[in-house]
Amino acid sequence: MNPRYLAITGGVGGAKLCVGLARLLAAEQLTFLVNTGDDFEHLGLHVSPDLDTPTYALSDLSNPDTGWGRRDESWHFIETLRGLGGEGWFNLGDRDLALHVLRSQWLRSGLRLGEVTDRLRRAHGIAHTLLPMTDDPVRTQVHTTEGTLAFQHYFVRERCVPAVTGFSFAGVERATLNDHARGLLADPTLAGVILCPSNPFVSVDPILALPGLRDALRDCPAPVVAVSPIVAGLAIKGPTAKMMEELRVPQTALAVAMHYEDILDGFILDAADENLIPALAARNLPAIATPSVMVTLDDKIALARTTLAFIHSLYAP
Amino acid sequence: MNPRYLAITGGVGGAKLCVGLARLLAAEQLTFLVNTGDDFEHLGLHVSPDLDTPTYALSDLSNPDTGWGRRDESWHFIETLRGLGGEGWFNLGDRDLALHVLRSQWLRSGLRLGEVTDRLRRAHGIAHTLLPMTDDPVRTQVHTTEGTLAFQHYFVRERCVPAVTGFSFAGVERATLNDHARGLLADPTLAGVILCPSNPFVSVDPILALPGLRDALRDCPAPVVAVSPIVAGLAIKGPTAKMMEELRVPQTALAVAMHYEDILDGFILDAADENLIPALAARNLPAIATPSVMVTLDDKIALARTTLAFIHSLYAP
Repeated sequence: MNPRYLAITGGVGGAKLCVGLARLLAAEQLTFLVNTGDDFEHLGLHVSPDLDTPTYALSDLSNPDTGWGRRDESWHFIETLRGLGGEGWFNLGDRDLALHVLRSQWLRSGLRLGEVTDRLRRAHGIAHTLLPMTDDPVRTQVHTTEGTLAFQHYFVRERCVPAVTGFSFAGVERATLNDHARGLLADPTLAGVILCPSNPFVSVDPILALPGLRDALRDCPAPVVAVSPIVAGLAIKGPTAKMMEELRVPQTALAVAMHYEDILDGFILDAADENLIPALAARNLPAIATPSVMVTLDDKIALARTTLAFIHSLYAP
Repeated sequence: MNPRYLAITGGVGGAKLCVGLARLLAAEQLTFLVNTGDDFEHLGLHVSPDLDTPTYALSDLSNPDTGWGRRDESWHFIETLRGLGGEGWFNLGDRDLALHVLRSQWLRSGLRLGEVTDRLRRAHGIAHTLLPMTDDPVRTQVHTTEGTLAFQHYFVRERCVPAVTGFSFAGVERATLNDHARGLLADPTLAGVILCPSNPFVSVDPILALPGLRDALRDCPAPVVAVSPIVAGLAIKGPTAKMMEELRVPQTALAVAMHYEDILDGFILDAADENLIPALAARNLPAIATPSVMVTLDDKIALARTTLAFIHSLYAP
């Protein structure tokens, strides 16, 4: 039986590794579990930014300039909405909007987010299974020196300017991990779990906060590895490094590894951070260093290949 | 005190006369009362086609080629939605969509349709008051030889092909005429009511079916005049003539006048139908004939001027 893998991911950075993994593994071998903590209701629509990014990435529709949304996009809707006095701070492209309208319509008709996500990934021609972390509402709250903000208000409207003091995930204690993901974690063919290089605080932590998931990851016989989103003390994209500074966490890949330490069996850091391997070894965490900045499709496939080989080395030592 | 006028209208044809009237009368003198029987919920949005058409016409945004929607429109949203398997039979332009999203958002937030319509007409820079006929849901049902269809399913999806046997207006018996319109009908400064050249069966009748409105029109001292949407036995646009044939009503302006006979004080028909004036005179209905096909702005203003002069002749004989 073919080995199966679960990739846990947020948006932009994680989605790049997902694309690489999807090129190497058959549909039945690879499942994506995606953050929904940054979902929000906006303009009467249910927007799921972290589901959209891998959806577009896996269907080769991503906008390479923005990192979110679709390429070859037009903005007539949002420009008109702004002109009419509507809330225009969250950019929604004309083509992108079709996905939000369909998702919202299907949710309102009574479908669960998992069912809607499955319909949408099929409509995008994506063979691999894409799962929202839960069908239940979980909403990331960003605590800042200027008060608590809903995630998208912090991230988009306020452009990550307020200094972060912490995070909470409203609703997570009542949320249930997606059934398929739960089943996969207990499946004897599971060969590895990958924490993709997404923001640990706002992309991966909301998933890990789901009741029972950390325990399931600790208990599962397959190796759990993380790929560092921090390279040489910098975030490839987004506010990860800024958040670490504000939270007084060292801005290093080592700090990312320690953040996940209780569930990790291995850690992948960038070639630039090879000097951190002894410190990880001292903590009994196997680690490898490899080029991890993904620009081209080849970069994504190469990192995916290295990741799978590393998992294999941990699984069958 | 300035005389005041109420124009009762549906979409395309009526909206042209509204534009002419708005050029001649100050904002406080002219109020539009608009059909909402063809409103529908589509893709999770509240769409009000007959409110949109005068909104775009009065703000000079109309698409002259289609008669509905906005000019300089793009279609990326609906093309994408169709590609994803969404219901694509009702065309929604990218810019047009901003209006539907805002209306839907505001209605969901608890505002009444009248409040939302007022916000939207202000956002479009329209000085004159635009009223939905009611805040309550009324839905035109088209009875055909192939069964009963919701109005937009008949009109857009089925392209008016099924033969009509009658109409009903679901919810109208529980619907309340817009408060402002009710007040205006009892206002001593009311100088005239104009039934614009819209489809009698599906644009004007839903309004006239509101409890108490026909009585209020009969009782009001100001003249009530209608402008024929039928010219020389043909409808300028839309399925009016086809419906008349299927309903076995003569396809003439005379039949339109008789349709409204209980509430009319005067009737305006096209110069091509001047020969019908004696028949109307025989029914004690004053009538004039004038060019009524509105292509240019000047045409709209000229017909509006003639309409107001005719009302004046009836009011102060």
